Amino acid sequence: ERVAAMLQKKAALGDEQPSGKFVLKTPKGTRDYGPASMAVRESVLKTVTASFKKHGAETIDTPVFELREVLMGKYGEEGGKLVYDLQDQGGELLSMRYDLTVPFARYLAMNKITNIKRYHIAKVYRRDQPVMTRGRYREFYQCDFDIAGQYDLMLPEAECLKIVDEVLSGLEIGDFYVNLNHRLILEGMFAVAGIPADKFKTICSSVDKLDKTPWAEVEEEMIKEKGLNSEQTTKLGAFVRFREINPTLSNSELLSKIAELEGLSNNDKFKKGVSELQVLIEYCDIYGIKSVKFEPALARGLDYYTGAIYEAVAPKALEGTAVEKAEDAEGQPAGVGSVAAGGRYDGLVGMFSPKANVPCVGVSFGIERLFAIKEARQAAQSVLRTSETEVFVASAQKNLLKERMKICKELWDDGIKAEFAYKANPKLLTQLQYCEERKIPLVIIIGEREIQEKIVKLRNVASREEEDVPLSSLANAIREKISKLL
Amino acid sequence: ERVAAMLQKKAALGDEQPSGKFVLKTPKGTRDYGPASMAVRESVLKTVTASFKKHGAETIDTPVFELREVLMGKYGEEGGKLVYDLQDQGGELLSMRYDLTVPFARYLAMNKITNIKRYHIAKVYRRDQPVMTRGRYREFYQCDFDIAGQYDLMLPEAECLKIVDEVLSGLEIGDFYVNLNHRLILEGMFAVAGIPADKFKTICSSVDKLDKTPWAEVEEEMIKEKGLNSEQTTKLGAFVRFREINPTLSNSELLSKIAELEGLSNNDKFKKGVSELQVLIEYCDIYGIKSVKFEPALARGLDYYTGAIYEAVAPKALEGTAVEKAEDAEGQPAGVGSVAAGGRYDGLVGMFSPKANVPCVGVSFGIERLFAIKEARQAAQSVLRTSETEVFVASAQKNLLKERMKICKELWDDGIKAEFAYKANPKLLTQLQYCEERKIPLVIIIGEREIQEKIVKLRNVASREEEDVPLSSLANAIREKISKLL
Repeated sequence: ERVAAMLQKKAALGDEQPSGKFVLKTPKGTRDYGPASMAVRESVLKTVTASFKKHGAETIDTPVFELREVLMGKYGEEGGKLVYDLQDQGGELLSMRYDLTVPFARYLAMNKITNIKRYHIAKVYRRDQPVMTRGRYREFYQCDFDIAGQYDLMLPEAECLKIVDEVLSGLEIGDFYVNLNHRLILEGMFAVAGIPADKFKTICSSVDKLDKTPWAEVEEEMIKEKGLNSEQTTKLGAFVRFREINPTLSNSELLSKIAELEGLSNNDKFKKGVSELQVLIEYCDIYGIKSVKFEPALARGLDYYTGAIYEAVAPKALEGTAVEKAEDAEGQPAGVGSVAAGGRYDGLVGMFSPKANVPCVGVSFGIERLFAIKEARQAAQSVLRTSETEVFVASAQKNLLKERMKICKELWDDGIKAEFAYKANPKLLTQLQYCEERKIPLVIIIGEREIQEKIVKLRNVASREEEDVPLSSLANAIREKISKLL
Repeated sequence: ERVAAMLQKKAALGDEQPSGKFVLKTPKGTRDYGPASMAVRESVLKTVTASFKKHGAETIDTPVFELREVLMGKYGEEGGKLVYDLQDQGGELLSMRYDLTVPFARYLAMNKITNIKRYHIAKVYRRDQPVMTRGRYREFYQCDFDIAGQYDLMLPEAECLKIVDEVLSGLEIGDFYVNLNHRLILEGMFAVAGIPADKFKTICSSVDKLDKTPWAEVEEEMIKEKGLNSEQTTKLGAFVRFREINPTLSNSELLSKIAELEGLSNNDKFKKGVSELQVLIEYCDIYGIKSVKFEPALARGLDYYTGAIYEAVAPKALEGTAVEKAEDAEGQPAGVGSVAAGGRYDGLVGMFSPKANVPCVGVSFGIERLFAIKEARQAAQSVLRTSETEVFVASAQKNLLKERMKICKELWDDGIKAEFAYKANPKLLTQLQYCEERKIPLVIIIGEREIQEKIVKLRNVASREEEDVPLSSLANAIREKISKLL
């Protein structure tokens, strides 16, 4: 009867597609990842997870859907509308996860976990308007690292920033830096500038535009649209533009000097924020992190974050790639936005378990953006391989199928990644072309002579250099050549 | 208004849960995977993917949901009822993927791909009655390896069997074997036994029980429930029990001898099946595969497979584990069913693209079962680690936080996996207990003396042996010890 119901529904929809045949496509806002995309993704994730593991992190996974009640009310009005719901087929009402943070909080509360350093890399779902050309999909990966637990001041934050620094250096995406601020610094500046508390959130989102928009425009918006007066904006401007105004000062100099500004020096929240960041900056220095910049204009997630906040940007990551050129042609900025962001959020677990006090701090990598950056940069170099085959076993004459199979068997059993053609009598040229297309570095060529002499010809596909190698030492010869080539 | 609609729905359902508070749980038939489960999963997948990559495979990914039309009519009446549908929120009608094979066929047809050797490891969704104690969930992983393309006889099949043999050996789950049969052999035997074609499928499912049920019972079922007569079952019995009756014969002897049986020797389908398996058996011998057994009673998926079929079983994989004991106590068999299965299916891509002729052969690992086996076996050994931390940096005295941070920084920058306590003044005992609990193999202990002399105490957590190591050669000393320990 389900099918019948579906057919009725289809009829009601006007049956736009001829029956028996339909357009082969993936759902709106989703895509397949072919071997080339997957190879990029695997290599990025390898760098990221290696760093997480270096810092002792564990990993967890949660179901792709949650009870609808778990997600309800967690993403504000806007976010709530974008949640994918499952059909009520009898039983529980379910929705697809919208991020990894709420499932993480649910996991901690449900299992009464008070201490964990975990990462979670998985897909999330948002019924957003997709913009495929800019990489905005309805199904996409998130990659979160979080430290939950009661710890001493700024130690988990410093480790998060160390990981951001390590991962972004390791990915080789060009220069990057990490803007750093603190919720209490934002609140202090707003209060001292005379902005009423009920406007903090909306002013926050104006200030957050300062990385792309000149001050004059942002000020106009705050006056005309958000009802501030110029006294307020002038004061606020002197605070949030403090780094811009003092470009040569170090982080700790900036923090000391901004704390001396009129009004701020008497605001307790502000002073607490500054003293916490001073500790964090000192720890960053110990960890040799040079990418972090105190930026009083960084303003994000006021209803979420409770302490330090940070956001990493890599403005030149797409420089020289085809993506940059395409965006330039469209008249859009070729920069890339945030590639990692996070901060301290001490209230989340309490949403599920009011008595539990599980402070959290974390960072979420913009992993889809990082995939896109690496894909664009790798396309520029065209060195991508989609399989890891080290050697292809070819024959120059007919009737050598079983000989090729025997050699492959020995190589596989020795741990060498090897392939051969699934044809009884393939042409040598076809076999060599396959190696070139697939960028397989080495090829073994056998013929009657080689079999009699118990040797093979081992050929470097790129340089076409050949040498005879005895069968008995073949695996080692391949390993040696591969270690020099890759 | 979505929320309002939901609240109405909730009210209609009788509002069983007190408002504002609900039971924290995952959806029915799903579970979280904590660090311990994830560690097992990662190690199993590492073995599996290493083998796939050794054979030159690429990987792809597809969306977790598909257009409902893509899945409709692909899983029979039973399967169709178990598909999760997404709610119609405007736009396309979507359903969660039920397996990885249909999305693979859709991917090939949509992209007009005629040649690929790919693996796909991802979660699939079935609204089945979950049996958590036996590891049956509604969200679970599948792990498929397939070779699509026109190739010479039995070469892709042989490589699939080599991979099964490699993976199951590599996982160390005890003895296993791979039953092998051919669709044409089954059809030939049924025809020669005088079974009408419209009963092939139902007789197939009777024959498939022979691995667990004695012949007499199966024969009774075929006579009483499926309307065969004893002449037919006697003939069929002589065929499908041929291995049972001739336990000492090799695969190729069995194939030769069964082909001499009365009636079979004249059946063209049967003869074709036998001659194909003879080629496959010869290739298995070349590949050194000892696990494969020709088994005329293996009967699966008649409406799906078109050629060779195989199924791997590991009857003693749970021997000696807590799972075995629990199941024995319940009076259930402690064996594990199939851990891998597959075969040739040449018709699937044609379901989406009638003109395309893309023959396929593949194998699907029972990866959830393999996870469960490894989890049970590892619990018995209790050697599991959930993080990869190699060394913990501890202090024996107060006020050494920054010293611990500096050492960690150097170790991280040198690629060593290191942790320290996020406390300014942790107790030494607490730090050492953490290492023991987490099975971290090495611990560095520093105090005033060590700092002055620019050394550290490097301690083996298990043996408690200690030695002084100069800071300048610390990373190398750790690497050397780790290489001996792990």
